[in-house]
Amino acid sequence: MDQIELVRSLKAKNDSKIVMYVGDGLGGLPQTPGGPTELEAAKTPNLDALAARGVQGGSIPVKPGIAPGSGPGHLGLFGYDPLKYLIGRGALEATGIGLIMQEGDVAVRCNFCTVDAEGKITDRRAGRIATEESAPLAIKLRQVKIDGIEIIVEPVKEHRFVVLFRGEGLDGNVHDTDPQATGVKPLDPKAADAASEKTAKIALEFFNQASKLLAGEKKANSLTMRGFSAKPSIPSFEDVYGLKAAAIAVYPMYKGLASLVGMDIIGDPHTLEEEIDLLEKHWEEYDFFFVHFKYTDSSGEDGKFELKVQRTEEFDAQIPRINALKPTVTIVTGDHSTPSFLASHSWHPVPTLLVSDCCRYDGHTSFGEKTTLTGGLGQFEAQYLMTLAMANAGRLGKYGA
Amino acid sequence: MDQIELVRSLKAKNDSKIVMYVGDGLGGLPQTPGGPTELEAAKTPNLDALAARGVQGGSIPVKPGIAPGSGPGHLGLFGYDPLKYLIGRGALEATGIGLIMQEGDVAVRCNFCTVDAEGKITDRRAGRIATEESAPLAIKLRQVKIDGIEIIVEPVKEHRFVVLFRGEGLDGNVHDTDPQATGVKPLDPKAADAASEKTAKIALEFFNQASKLLAGEKKANSLTMRGFSAKPSIPSFEDVYGLKAAAIAVYPMYKGLASLVGMDIIGDPHTLEEEIDLLEKHWEEYDFFFVHFKYTDSSGEDGKFELKVQRTEEFDAQIPRINALKPTVTIVTGDHSTPSFLASHSWHPVPTLLVSDCCRYDGHTSFGEKTTLTGGLGQFEAQYLMTLAMANAGRLGKYGA
Repeated sequence: MDQIELVRSLKAKNDSKIVMYVGDGLGGLPQTPGGPTELEAAKTPNLDALAARGVQGGSIPVKPGIAPGSGPGHLGLFGYDPLKYLIGRGALEATGIGLIMQEGDVAVRCNFCTVDAEGKITDRRAGRIATEESAPLAIKLRQVKIDGIEIIVEPVKEHRFVVLFRGEGLDGNVHDTDPQATGVKPLDPKAADAASEKTAKIALEFFNQASKLLAGEKKANSLTMRGFSAKPSIPSFEDVYGLKAAAIAVYPMYKGLASLVGMDIIGDPHTLEEEIDLLEKHWEEYDFFFVHFKYTDSSGEDGKFELKVQRTEEFDAQIPRINALKPTVTIVTGDHSTPSFLASHSWHPVPTLLVSDCCRYDGHTSFGEKTTLTGGLGQFEAQYLMTLAMANAGRLGKYGA
Repeated sequence: MDQIELVRSLKAKNDSKIVMYVGDGLGGLPQTPGGPTELEAAKTPNLDALAARGVQGGSIPVKPGIAPGSGPGHLGLFGYDPLKYLIGRGALEATGIGLIMQEGDVAVRCNFCTVDAEGKITDRRAGRIATEESAPLAIKLRQVKIDGIEIIVEPVKEHRFVVLFRGEGLDGNVHDTDPQATGVKPLDPKAADAASEKTAKIALEFFNQASKLLAGEKKANSLTMRGFSAKPSIPSFEDVYGLKAAAIAVYPMYKGLASLVGMDIIGDPHTLEEEIDLLEKHWEEYDFFFVHFKYTDSSGEDGKFELKVQRTEEFDAQIPRINALKPTVTIVTGDHSTPSFLASHSWHPVPTLLVSDCCRYDGHTSFGEKTTLTGGLGQFEAQYLMTLAMANAGRLGKYGA
């Protein structure tokens, strides 16, 4: 029995409310041995006050030493074992640009390429064509029509775009058509199982029509298709936890990830203030709120220590508004660490704080990487955080008699 | 290879003795943030002295956030993964009232109910008939006779009783006969597999004879049968650890749980003093002793902080008598936390202390929830505690060359 099945079998309902306040890439590193991390250098009076009535620890996103992408990072936070619940590349790409996949959809990552008169590939990425030039081509491909199938085409960056097929009887086990070489034609889409035969046929028809539409184009006159994937088979938040859940995020990727586990995406905020406005406005309608703040991650990715400190302080500043709503359980965490020292996602445990009336206070009065080492949550895999949230909310029955 | 198989393959024998001293529901919570837990408020000079020559940590009964019942709680302490080794509802009920199941037995939880002239259920719980009225009816059912089968009938509480079938060729995969509705007859017992066909037939015969015996009764004139279960398939303590093990407990449930893993149940003590008397008396006969103290749990379940403090002090007071026997390894722990703040079992890690000549002392000189956070055992799943005990007793060989 995995954790998801266990929690599903024990879940109970009550009137409690849970807020998961996620600072993307929250964990950091000092610039020099002995120095503070970004979180420790930041002035965070509100996090410190939460720490005094909470319990803290280090969340390991996947396994020790593993730095996750946003997909597995968030699946872990949402309580799904990120090594078991996988999001196909096409589905992740579609999700990343904000497409909401429905049951039965198949998403495909496509690359523009160039081919010669015989149809043989001359450049697999069409000279990394600029986005301004590739986007109109992607939009042109919306002219492709296939009976009984809805086709959604969305530009991504440079030579990349996404195609989503929607219709009856589709599945995602189709091999890539990119031959990974020049001087040969793109491969025909080939189904890896019987359930995906129809998808392969439709993909071939899409390729043929698209090739005609692109025939006269100079920068990119053909395409390859990769990472075919159906909507990931992930049991929903409602099913597993019995929680009516809302996601509040600025960036499409995080809305998409939340939608994959069945959360409602509310509003279209552009700032953290607007996100908290939405939290307040919809407070009575949901049991669980996932609130996502992007800039602790992007400043870390850019390698900017001081900027990440400042972003962390902005993250801290909205906490009194959350407190004022009196959540039963408040969780502050991140989906992974993004130390500006590394300018990338990392594997380091993520400082995590859980506050409820029945958490076992650990006596800390501040919140940072160092204090988590003696925090009451110890070091734990992120996939257990939702179970702890459910327990602290009084929403889990006893296991066995 | 799971932990049980690993330990079984490495076990070695010597003259060491291990005492596992279990304060049921030992872990607690403060009444207010920053305050002491029950264990921290209690005066426990003997536990503190043990801490000074031991190593401590937090035992997670099942997984983070999961509050266990007594069954999985104790299976974990005994080293069995509580998500893998399951005790069927009938077996747990039988165990809970002190029936010792043998290999091949099938236990069933039964409910008295009322039926109309056509045999259709009118009240599934016979109006929650009082125990004083239901017990004589259960005893009356001991008159049921079936060739080649020993039948044990024991009253439980109110409308509940237990039936245990003992004989050749029985297995426990039989569906419940409770239709979960009134206005319909109890279902016939139906086997879910071939090995349980005979059990289903015998259960039907029991139902028919019992219905006749109850026919004239006003309060309860029929029964339903649920949770058919064979003796759980759990490798014995002797087999896994090579330990001759004794259980000393006041309450039937804990004797029953210990008997399921093959421990000898010694004596019939009524107080903790009498339990330690038995420990002293049988010291030479066993390698391992499980000593169970109930009242840290029951006072917590009743929500009585001060009473739990007092019970914890009583638990502490017997430690010098255990020390005097000079065990090779002494473990003090609980099967779960029972904070009086919650008045129920909880998921919080259980303060756990291990003392041996070769434990790696962590420098603590007191024992409580807060000190465990920096204890040498860290936070660990309960199922690993027996392995640690075996290692500290010098009873485990090296894994691999």
